[in-house]
Amino acid sequence: MRKAWEKNIRTVVPYTPGEQPKFLEMVKLNTNENPYPPSPRVKEALDAINYENLRLYPDPACEELVAALAARYQVSPEEVFVGVGSDDVLSMCFLTFFHSGKPIFFPDVTYSFYDVWADVYGIPYERQPLNDRFEIVKEDYYRENGGVIFPNPNAPTGLLMELSEIEEIIRHNQDVVVVVDEAYIDFGGKSAVELIHKYDNLLVVQTFSKSRSMAGMRIGYAMGNKDLIRYLSDVKYSVNSYTMNLPALAAGKAALEDEAYFQENVNRIISTRERTKKELSKLGFTFGDSKANFIFATHERFQARELFEALKIKKIFVRYFNKPRIDNYLRISIGTDQEMDTLLEFLKKYVKEN
Amino acid sequence: MRKAWEKNIRTVVPYTPGEQPKFLEMVKLNTNENPYPPSPRVKEALDAINYENLRLYPDPACEELVAALAARYQVSPEEVFVGVGSDDVLSMCFLTFFHSGKPIFFPDVTYSFYDVWADVYGIPYERQPLNDRFEIVKEDYYRENGGVIFPNPNAPTGLLMELSEIEEIIRHNQDVVVVVDEAYIDFGGKSAVELIHKYDNLLVVQTFSKSRSMAGMRIGYAMGNKDLIRYLSDVKYSVNSYTMNLPALAAGKAALEDEAYFQENVNRIISTRERTKKELSKLGFTFGDSKANFIFATHERFQARELFEALKIKKIFVRYFNKPRIDNYLRISIGTDQEMDTLLEFLKKYVKEN
Repeated sequence: MRKAWEKNIRTVVPYTPGEQPKFLEMVKLNTNENPYPPSPRVKEALDAINYENLRLYPDPACEELVAALAARYQVSPEEVFVGVGSDDVLSMCFLTFFHSGKPIFFPDVTYSFYDVWADVYGIPYERQPLNDRFEIVKEDYYRENGGVIFPNPNAPTGLLMELSEIEEIIRHNQDVVVVVDEAYIDFGGKSAVELIHKYDNLLVVQTFSKSRSMAGMRIGYAMGNKDLIRYLSDVKYSVNSYTMNLPALAAGKAALEDEAYFQENVNRIISTRERTKKELSKLGFTFGDSKANFIFATHERFQARELFEALKIKKIFVRYFNKPRIDNYLRISIGTDQEMDTLLEFLKKYVKEN
Repeated sequence: MRKAWEKNIRTVVPYTPGEQPKFLEMVKLNTNENPYPPSPRVKEALDAINYENLRLYPDPACEELVAALAARYQVSPEEVFVGVGSDDVLSMCFLTFFHSGKPIFFPDVTYSFYDVWADVYGIPYERQPLNDRFEIVKEDYYRENGGVIFPNPNAPTGLLMELSEIEEIIRHNQDVVVVVDEAYIDFGGKSAVELIHKYDNLLVVQTFSKSRSMAGMRIGYAMGNKDLIRYLSDVKYSVNSYTMNLPALAAGKAALEDEAYFQENVNRIISTRERTKKELSKLGFTFGDSKANFIFATHERFQARELFEALKIKKIFVRYFNKPRIDNYLRISIGTDQEMDTLLEFLKKYVKEN
């Protein structure tokens, strides 16, 4: 029986994160984690923390981390916001910027958290369908709306939109905030951050979870003009003043100080991705030209679900979405060369024997 | 000029955290931090983290930390929720439980974040005035409402309510959720957690920031019946699935494993608090019988603001609230004995010379 207090509360269908299986021996290509560790500078920074200082509140303004981000992206500290992973940053964006009561626009095939945030905050939305090649159709975003958000590259397709097309979307939406979610931009795209001084309604969101190998530290950030950042900060300070703990602040700063490691890490993943594309093609897979750290692939003969299950038995985990339009695709994160070889050898055998 | 997009966004008056001055030499008694470091086990746990694992997402269910909390409080893991400090937990409570559209009730003099959360989430509220002795009047909470929240001990008064009185409030409010915010309970109060199996609408919120000396790590938690916890988790997973980073999960668990250190730390602060009360009385201060790690005091001759400013010049930081009813009080956190002596000596001199 439903209890009396239950009718007074907010009930939601929560986001389902990718599986986090706990096998010691597995090939984990299901949550777009980076297969390589963070910069050794991160270890040094963590070792240098005096644990006694944990008794004090951390810096609520995250000044040192913000300064390091500002320096890296050649913006001013007033143009930077940080949060507990890009999910925290994006959630704050929904709460802050999509408050008009008009429907916000995002693609029909995209990051599956967007509709969840809209639901939890009571924001109306309209999904704009990708075309048959899974591309965003920019003209779909030219009608009146309450805000626009899309990832670039898009997830889970991996497809990149040219900056000129993104600029067209921003230009047609100057009365609302446009959020470009660049979680995967470092794997081959050009960031829209260079447009923030041209368009004061543009917010660019990035993360340390993918290209900086720090999913376990929970650091995301946004860059935009200082008024946007101030509104976002006001809401953040009204929800939780102290979100970034001492280790996250220290580790984030340290990672930014090792640009060489970052570039090398990213290039290694790009090279593995391109090699994997060639091998998958030979095996009868087709996919768009992903610029992210994953490939979104479908097979000419085998159902995605069947492959997903067969791989799982061998403790090779990829992501399968049981959703319209994409239920015959697998999202395969780029792991180490060795991990991709394990995957490819299994698939080679599977294709041959079935 | 207001920009077009500005009319579509949520604007709020954010919570103002206590000052975080950056002097190396200061007596910081303004944000209720613990003057002693966390358990040495916390250091061991942090040293044991393999930084390479930061590349992976942390456990979204926080299983090990939840299990440690469940064991410590003799509840089941399904009755425990964790978040990024108790502010994160409380914010989620507002978003989840106070959704009826009816006004929620909390004291007029209380934690200054409650009205901020209500404003940011559009929740109506009614402040119930404390009596002349700054006590919560339980009968004020017996009318129809959309939920009840109060701290015990209350902040910034430090006054503790007996568990029997709290039970009366819960008993009169079984159609809504009652949140007891126990940030300071370990400094001399009896937790309401023993009532969670009797009342399924009771949620008890605690924190690692005060009695466990870990404000810098951002760990808070809630305990309540498993349906309440599930609803809270559903909303949390809809906002940010991975909130607790790897160091927080490891350090939180380690702190709970050192009960002896915890007890010793808390007793030391209680003893300093009681001594400080005696000394402040001699100097002409009056205050309620605080059971928290701070004293909320007013002076017979000097204005609180004047004392606050005079102390600040000497780099002794206490908290002053420029708010109705409490603008002639100082909230003085309990520091080390040495820190309290510095404060008391200054006050002795000030009282004598003015």
